[in-house]
Amino acid sequence: MLKTPITELLNIEHPIVQGGMQWVGRAELASAVSNAGGLGLLTALTQPTPEDLYKEINRCREMTDKPFGINLTILPTIKPVPYDEYAQAAISAGIKVIETAGRNPEKFMPMFKSSDITIIHKCTSVRHAIKAEQVGVDAISIDGFECAGHPGEDDIPGLILIPAARKAVNIPMLASGGFGTGSGLAAAIALGADGINMGTRFLATKEAPVHQNVKDRLVEASEMDTALIFRTLNNTARIYNNSVAKKVVDIESLPGETDFSDLADHVAGVKGREVLEKGDLEHGVWTAGMIAGLIDDIPDCKTLLVRIIAEAEEIITRQLASVVA
Amino acid sequence: MLKTPITELLNIEHPIVQGGMQWVGRAELASAVSNAGGLGLLTALTQPTPEDLYKEINRCREMTDKPFGINLTILPTIKPVPYDEYAQAAISAGIKVIETAGRNPEKFMPMFKSSDITIIHKCTSVRHAIKAEQVGVDAISIDGFECAGHPGEDDIPGLILIPAARKAVNIPMLASGGFGTGSGLAAAIALGADGINMGTRFLATKEAPVHQNVKDRLVEASEMDTALIFRTLNNTARIYNNSVAKKVVDIESLPGETDFSDLADHVAGVKGREVLEKGDLEHGVWTAGMIAGLIDDIPDCKTLLVRIIAEAEEIITRQLASVVA
Repeated sequence: MLKTPITELLNIEHPIVQGGMQWVGRAELASAVSNAGGLGLLTALTQPTPEDLYKEINRCREMTDKPFGINLTILPTIKPVPYDEYAQAAISAGIKVIETAGRNPEKFMPMFKSSDITIIHKCTSVRHAIKAEQVGVDAISIDGFECAGHPGEDDIPGLILIPAARKAVNIPMLASGGFGTGSGLAAAIALGADGINMGTRFLATKEAPVHQNVKDRLVEASEMDTALIFRTLNNTARIYNNSVAKKVVDIESLPGETDFSDLADHVAGVKGREVLEKGDLEHGVWTAGMIAGLIDDIPDCKTLLVRIIAEAEEIITRQLASVVA
Repeated sequence: MLKTPITELLNIEHPIVQGGMQWVGRAELASAVSNAGGLGLLTALTQPTPEDLYKEINRCREMTDKPFGINLTILPTIKPVPYDEYAQAAISAGIKVIETAGRNPEKFMPMFKSSDITIIHKCTSVRHAIKAEQVGVDAISIDGFECAGHPGEDDIPGLILIPAARKAVNIPMLASGGFGTGSGLAAAIALGADGINMGTRFLATKEAPVHQNVKDRLVEASEMDTALIFRTLNNTARIYNNSVAKKVVDIESLPGETDFSDLADHVAGVKGREVLEKGDLEHGVWTAGMIAGLIDDIPDCKTLLVRIIAEAEEIITRQLASVVA
């Protein structure tokens, strides 16, 4: 058992929080993570309407009596998204933990605070971590260059970003991006974090509601099998480096303004959803983090968390302790 | 005191090795690191001829009776470099530890082995680490994306690269790139390394033979103040992000073949040397790693190493141990 300010704050057994993955963060996975002693998260925008989110929260509650939360990612979109209504639906359904990401959560703080919500803000830089602490979030999830999805534009890996953030903020902090093992958890705590956030590692679990081909590919993949796209749009994303990713990278390397019109569906993520559901891995872009290189199996969430905690404890109490002469 | 396979292999007090920095790895710094209980390295090619390296080794030996080594970096050059003669000069002068970098050291192995040299090979990928172990080096120094100088073209940070390399090779391993603190040392060991290599952190010490302006700038710098150049040449280098670096990045972003002819001196490193010696920080490109963001002072090497070891011990025996319930 590892007890940290994060296990206390979130009232969970293990200091491990599930990442808010689009099309993946459904009741099946969130309940499995929470039942395993971590904190599962439903991804709010995976549900087509706030009402659907309300129903999904109730469905998840039937699958676990442990705490779980929602992820609310606020990104630039072509069609306006009713973020307030998603947040209100979650609160009405009794959610007590919300992970915000993509934008400073300041405008949501009064609503959250008046409903006793614990707010974890995920961000990719020290300056955003400082700002989030200032507006009153309860914990930071600091997300490094290694991560799947949006690492920001600064390219600072966890080895530097975690201790830099630790020096700058005082609230509990999760380390995110590149985590999926007990050695990573021990390293994160050594660097000043109070726990870890895992996305890609949970994608390769029995309970993740995605096609088996996706899970199998994560087992096969090395740390070299991701790519960064959309840097030309200042909206960088780390994805699995398939043939579609290579096409996007090629387009971005051309001089002049970037024209993705031939790949519009991929940019909008429609085909990414189809990859996850149908398992044709070359059909569109889909996110995967560098931790893919350290994923060797597809356990259930309980087995995974028991193993990570046991490995971290072994490293702390034996491997590290034994070098101190 | 931290005892690891690296302190045993190199017969040193602390598991900390100095990086082989061009124009910086002279007797003043190497002897100071060794006197502080780490392993100092003379940078072979900082000396204009093999005979000068022989003399520098003797000069260093007058400044310390502790073990020290040399760094031999084998990179593509316009003018041929007599690497064999540098290596032979070092061996003749009684050097017992050589850090190789830049290229597989296979062709030097018979010479090194017949002279009982301990070989540390620095590399930036798991495949190169495996190859180095196969050709018989004694230790790996695995160098992540965070590093100053040449991170390779794969962009894998230490958080992923260290455990991936640990799974692949069995010999002692140093973690390099992004290190300079006790928390980093503890994290490196948690991730499977047996010690750390530090370059930029030693640049900001009293004994580093570089202009005070360079050291002061490293104290001021944040983790955001480095840039990658020469990616278009497949010879990526991480440097301090000054006005010259910005010019190089601009040239590289232009379509067509990259033409650095207006910046030829900078590419060749001549002005980089002048920056280090004269302290005009905008005069040319000079290397700095992301650890600059975690450098807050300019201690002597002894003070630095005592502090890093004490911090690592504190983290291992108290911070980490206290989370195990």
